[in-house]
Amino acid sequence: MSEIRAISWVSDGLVLIDQTKLPQQEINLNIETVDQLVDAIKKLAVRGAPALGAAGAWGVVIAMRQAVKEKWSNEKRNEEFLRIRNARPTAVNLAWGVDKVLPFVDQGIDEVLAKANQIAAEDEAGNRQMGKFGSSWIESKVKNRPIRALTHCNTGSLATTTWGTALGVIREMNARGILKHVFADETRPLLQGGRLTAWELAHDNIEHFVIADGAATSIIARGEVDVALIGADRVAANGDTANKIGSFAVALACKYAGIPFVVVAPESTVDVATLTGADIEIEYRDENEILSLNGQRISPAKSKGLNPAFDVTPAELISALVTEKGVYEISNGITPGSKLAKA
Amino acid sequence: MSEIRAISWVSDGLVLIDQTKLPQQEINLNIETVDQLVDAIKKLAVRGAPALGAAGAWGVVIAMRQAVKEKWSNEKRNEEFLRIRNARPTAVNLAWGVDKVLPFVDQGIDEVLAKANQIAAEDEAGNRQMGKFGSSWIESKVKNRPIRALTHCNTGSLATTTWGTALGVIREMNARGILKHVFADETRPLLQGGRLTAWELAHDNIEHFVIADGAATSIIARGEVDVALIGADRVAANGDTANKIGSFAVALACKYAGIPFVVVAPESTVDVATLTGADIEIEYRDENEILSLNGQRISPAKSKGLNPAFDVTPAELISALVTEKGVYEISNGITPGSKLAKA
Repeated sequence: MSEIRAISWVSDGLVLIDQTKLPQQEINLNIETVDQLVDAIKKLAVRGAPALGAAGAWGVVIAMRQAVKEKWSNEKRNEEFLRIRNARPTAVNLAWGVDKVLPFVDQGIDEVLAKANQIAAEDEAGNRQMGKFGSSWIESKVKNRPIRALTHCNTGSLATTTWGTALGVIREMNARGILKHVFADETRPLLQGGRLTAWELAHDNIEHFVIADGAATSIIARGEVDVALIGADRVAANGDTANKIGSFAVALACKYAGIPFVVVAPESTVDVATLTGADIEIEYRDENEILSLNGQRISPAKSKGLNPAFDVTPAELISALVTEKGVYEISNGITPGSKLAKA
Repeated sequence: MSEIRAISWVSDGLVLIDQTKLPQQEINLNIETVDQLVDAIKKLAVRGAPALGAAGAWGVVIAMRQAVKEKWSNEKRNEEFLRIRNARPTAVNLAWGVDKVLPFVDQGIDEVLAKANQIAAEDEAGNRQMGKFGSSWIESKVKNRPIRALTHCNTGSLATTTWGTALGVIREMNARGILKHVFADETRPLLQGGRLTAWELAHDNIEHFVIADGAATSIIARGEVDVALIGADRVAANGDTANKIGSFAVALACKYAGIPFVVVAPESTVDVATLTGADIEIEYRDENEILSLNGQRISPAKSKGLNPAFDVTPAELISALVTEKGVYEISNGITPGSKLAKA
């Protein structure tokens, strides 16, 4: 079984899986120009914080090669770097990936490519480490075997360079032979669970059930789930966690049922400058994501939609935060902030 | 502003609003034969427990008139009564409505029609009474003005003969001038909130926002909601309440935020023979409601779906049950079962 690589440098070029076409069609995009890359980023053909970090870094290589081929001035080339950097303003990892390799531009394409490859390799290594830490922690806490896991949104190979964060832990549990099956929240409005997580689980032959987001609470409360795992967009110093809308409801249900709720995210997601979740601004996306489906209007013309893209799960509901460095037992008071304060 | 009547006896015939076409098209169906009625029930052109009760009762009139016109034998006529009664096996109110008028068949069409009209009139009167009780109770508990309400699924005129249960309370609060706006959960998988509740609120010019089901928890937790209201499919003696999947999550969020969670349903929904929610069997519907959207497959062919139609909200999370008889403060221990035991 080959591993899914949503973004990779193959032979001598950047290849993306077109995630807008999944799961119906598995189409690779060969990215050779800045236009192609910016277009792919804007239409969400490539998405997920770590994947966008790699896209930013490799994007600089694409721009440098195009600059040579088309004899761009340095000014034009630098503008193109910026155009990649700003293709999705709210995706901080994209800018991070660009900024990470820009200092090496003067050393030439090979050096920048080596740096970009390194960013991707480090992401993958971090994911595998999170998988091991998370799986071992869950093994120590969950006595029920085999384990039934629930997850929300997509945090797998498609959101990272490969393997994944929360879904990486699920993969690791599967590799260890302790996983029974997975409940995948469909994750309205954009259905990343029903489309992308289901596709990854099907690819890996992991038994799974797609459920409506509203079904998670009762399935958890009825004792049909042993652990829930999510990713994170940002983690505050106290452990409050911003993630895809709908995560908070899963956390409340886990608290009610007395099962662990686990956040899996790289250390780079932890922002100790943000003291609590109250300081995290919630991004609102286009109301039409709610009011329409497949381009067809669902609600009346007079109706408005409210479409918060993220919610903030309070630290008290989070059993553990798993990073590539280890496991913070947040609800036991071991937070990224307190740990750093002690260090 | 005319009131919405999803099902009504107009002049000399049964008229349904075709709910499968809402909100894009407002089409009335004139029902003149048993075939037309059974087809309308099966395809959910008419739905909602009280509305189906009226459909069953008026359906007997339709069958009796067709029997005269087409010179059916009594045996054939009785078979057609049964065909209406069984058009949707899980809808107990449909059978209830048929059974309620069957004893009057020998007295002739006019007598059965009068009984059916009475069933509809009593439903409407009950709804208006629930609206008043519910609105007054909320006024006594919610100090914030004007009130911001959240609801799940559709419990309005389209689910009843007119006015509605939970949505009837919202209409009454609007009529009293104490309502600010409504958050309508879209209610996956069948989108009764995004389609039907939004259409009713738009019809009544009530300000509203359709939200993803997963967004309700954080909107409630952020203090943007003063009260949440739902209907019920069945209420156990202790107050545990079976309702559309996703209701339980709303109740947990209300508990977390410290705001009232209110169930509005007629006394006929209370089943004191069912002691607790543990005795309520959950109906699972076709997995394709989750795996497909608008007839297009969303998830991979290998994926399975799990589609519980209802969940059971524990009594401890229910602030009040409002019926046409009054208000049971469930989480204060005043349950339909205990009240009856005392009587």
